[in-house]
Amino acid sequence: MSDLTLYIANKNYSSWSFRPWIALTAAGIPFREVLIPFGPGATNPQFRELSPTGRVPVLRHGGIRVWESLAIIEYVAELFPDAGLWPKDPGFRSMARSVSMEMLSGFHALRGACPMNMRRPVRAIELPVGVEANVRRIEAIWRDMRQMSGGPFLFGPFSAADAMFASVVNRFSAYDLVSDQDTLDYMAAIKAHPAWMAWETAALAESWIVPEDEA
Amino acid sequence: MSDLTLYIANKNYSSWSFRPWIALTAAGIPFREVLIPFGPGATNPQFRELSPTGRVPVLRHGGIRVWESLAIIEYVAELFPDAGLWPKDPGFRSMARSVSMEMLSGFHALRGACPMNMRRPVRAIELPVGVEANVRRIEAIWRDMRQMSGGPFLFGPFSAADAMFASVVNRFSAYDLVSDQDTLDYMAAIKAHPAWMAWETAALAESWIVPEDEA
Repeated sequence: MSDLTLYIANKNYSSWSFRPWIALTAAGIPFREVLIPFGPGATNPQFRELSPTGRVPVLRHGGIRVWESLAIIEYVAELFPDAGLWPKDPGFRSMARSVSMEMLSGFHALRGACPMNMRRPVRAIELPVGVEANVRRIEAIWRDMRQMSGGPFLFGPFSAADAMFASVVNRFSAYDLVSDQDTLDYMAAIKAHPAWMAWETAALAESWIVPEDEA
Repeated sequence: MSDLTLYIANKNYSSWSFRPWIALTAAGIPFREVLIPFGPGATNPQFRELSPTGRVPVLRHGGIRVWESLAIIEYVAELFPDAGLWPKDPGFRSMARSVSMEMLSGFHALRGACPMNMRRPVRAIELPVGVEANVRRIEAIWRDMRQMSGGPFLFGPFSAADAMFASVVNRFSAYDLVSDQDTLDYMAAIKAHPAWMAWETAALAESWIVPEDEA
């Protein structure tokens, strides 16, 4: 079953690569990883050969090719229904998908102003309009879901919903965006997860620089 | 099983309401519909009582509340696994989710410049940067998926992926954006679907005006 190949970009910068990677790794799903670093313009012509969108992540499984991070997670969740990628409870699962799709479709102000950058020293920046509202909504999601589930992760054990917000944990730290204790507790739980630590260690060992993502 | 309630906004304008509505209707799934029209600023304080995002659509099912259009579709697809919301073939299903998530997360230039407006007379507008590229990518998705499946819809029979692109069919018409015959054939197939026609008839009977969406 380790005939899954996940194509990703730089671990320091590629927040969309991080999402399916940490979801699969935390769930103990075997896969082969192929890293193709960003070239000029934070892209790479090789991505175009892999995906009709010209972007990574992409998953290959035999003749099947899946693009878009959350579609990859859904595909693998169907292949490994007992791996716990989504919560077992239907109500929790529906909320896990709702907040995952909020992340997939929104929070553009935060994403644009504060790119993921695992090795960035902590430093606040001038925040464009919209970032504060994004941060408040994400903090509310984290607080409400953990109050409901009892934590430590959004729906109890680590799930795909945590994976969808993993890059936000880095952004909140690196740009010094939050001080609420509930928020910090969740971030500490995520950063202590072995899958997070494995990705971070690999990111810190990279030497590529993507100027577009050095905010 | 008709204890599903779908909260939507104006049928003339609310493209995100349209997506789960047409998916459920085309699949023959019984649900109760509650329409809450947009107030000033293309929003409504009542949305906030229904959803933590302050937006519609929202689905209620007993004590379960699902927000985000595609999360609603996933929830109902699990409740009614034989309704054909997603294609049965795993490869087709993975691509249906990939293109649905492209729609959910992207095409912002098109969405911003050309709001859905079912009663808008056909009229071209000056197109901002990015719209052309969005149109070309959507045309490629429609052409490639229908070539692969044999059509008439993206994956053969009408599925959730068609629902995700339903509002784009209106935009391509109303803003006179396309002339490719493959594209026009797909649009004709969508517009001939009884679920599309039922929504359109109801939209044309509305008299509310949302100035923000009159481009």
